[in-house]
Amino acid sequence: MARTKGDHDARRREVSEAVWRVLDAHGFGGLTLRAVAAELGATTGLLTHYFATKRDLVAYALDLLEQRTLDRPRETAPDESAALRVALLGVLPLTAEAATSNRIWVSSWDPALADAGLSRDHARRYARSRDRLRDLVAAGQRRGDLAAGDPADIAAGAQAFVLGLVVQSLFEPAAFPARRQVALVDGYLRSLSPMPR
Amino acid sequence: MARTKGDHDARRREVSEAVWRVLDAHGFGGLTLRAVAAELGATTGLLTHYFATKRDLVAYALDLLEQRTLDRPRETAPDESAALRVALLGVLPLTAEAATSNRIWVSSWDPALADAGLSRDHARRYARSRDRLRDLVAAGQRRGDLAAGDPADIAAGAQAFVLGLVVQSLFEPAAFPARRQVALVDGYLRSLSPMPR
Repeated sequence: MARTKGDHDARRREVSEAVWRVLDAHGFGGLTLRAVAAELGATTGLLTHYFATKRDLVAYALDLLEQRTLDRPRETAPDESAALRVALLGVLPLTAEAATSNRIWVSSWDPALADAGLSRDHARRYARSRDRLRDLVAAGQRRGDLAAGDPADIAAGAQAFVLGLVVQSLFEPAAFPARRQVALVDGYLRSLSPMPR
Repeated sequence: MARTKGDHDARRREVSEAVWRVLDAHGFGGLTLRAVAAELGATTGLLTHYFATKRDLVAYALDLLEQRTLDRPRETAPDESAALRVALLGVLPLTAEAATSNRIWVSSWDPALADAGLSRDHARRYARSRDRLRDLVAAGQRRGDLAAGDPADIAAGAQAFVLGLVVQSLFEPAAFPARRQVALVDGYLRSLSPMPR
């Protein structure tokens, strides 16, 4: 009996779920064809139909991570002046789901830094994210919500602040509950406001 | 002929150098007994005298990374009011040597997040580093150099800022030359100052 497109898509989804569970439990360091096969209850041989090499598997996992991050439900900013805050908070591990996704992002920096092609892809992702923040900063400055300054530098600083907060929160969730993460970002945003504090 | 303590120490140094070169080239994802043995020109069997398991090797590499970071020559603050700035700049990949060390630190987050014991060790390292920054912030506030606010929160924010700047600089060194990294930290420090900007 011929395999249908539906079969193929269903199998692809199963593979993606298995890759995600391996990443969640062991990070990229534990991502091997063997581990994904075990998670699927399949043979490593079967997996090689999907991924010829370990690098293919890692590249697939990075795409999956990006897709799941884009698909994550996001809070919508109530108005334009809240857009920068919502964008920054959207990065943080404020929920269990966002913590899993962030833990996998942080873990992805190891294989990405070890491979020129994957490193370029990551650099592009972070540059795109900074560009979005830069546009929000420039809009905030035009409205008078934010102090003057190079919007690209302010965006790079804001991205640095949330990325570093992610790392600290993942290692010490008890010291960085969601409430404190939000308060720290709000303090950072106040420092960007045009009025003397 | 009996092996002397000097032989043992010399061998230990060779092993450390080999571990460092593997980390520099491939990150923690590429750190295996086999890779270190190849770098040493030794057998994997010999390596098992030093590291019974892969986890022992990873733990050793993390200790080595901490030791090399502590041993890295640091700029001394010209006076107390510069101490916080010097501490923050000391984290950044401003030189090739600091970039190597930072690249290995970032790479270490993957194995550390996958192992409860290693994760606790990392959490303790970052907490100690925040404590040092908190003391510098409190001293700056007493001198009137820094605005009021919870010194622990200001320290957590400053640590977030530099950690996130490290990550972005490693992925996009051309967009974050040393000069821009320093300027961003200086901008951040100005936002902590007591005077309206």
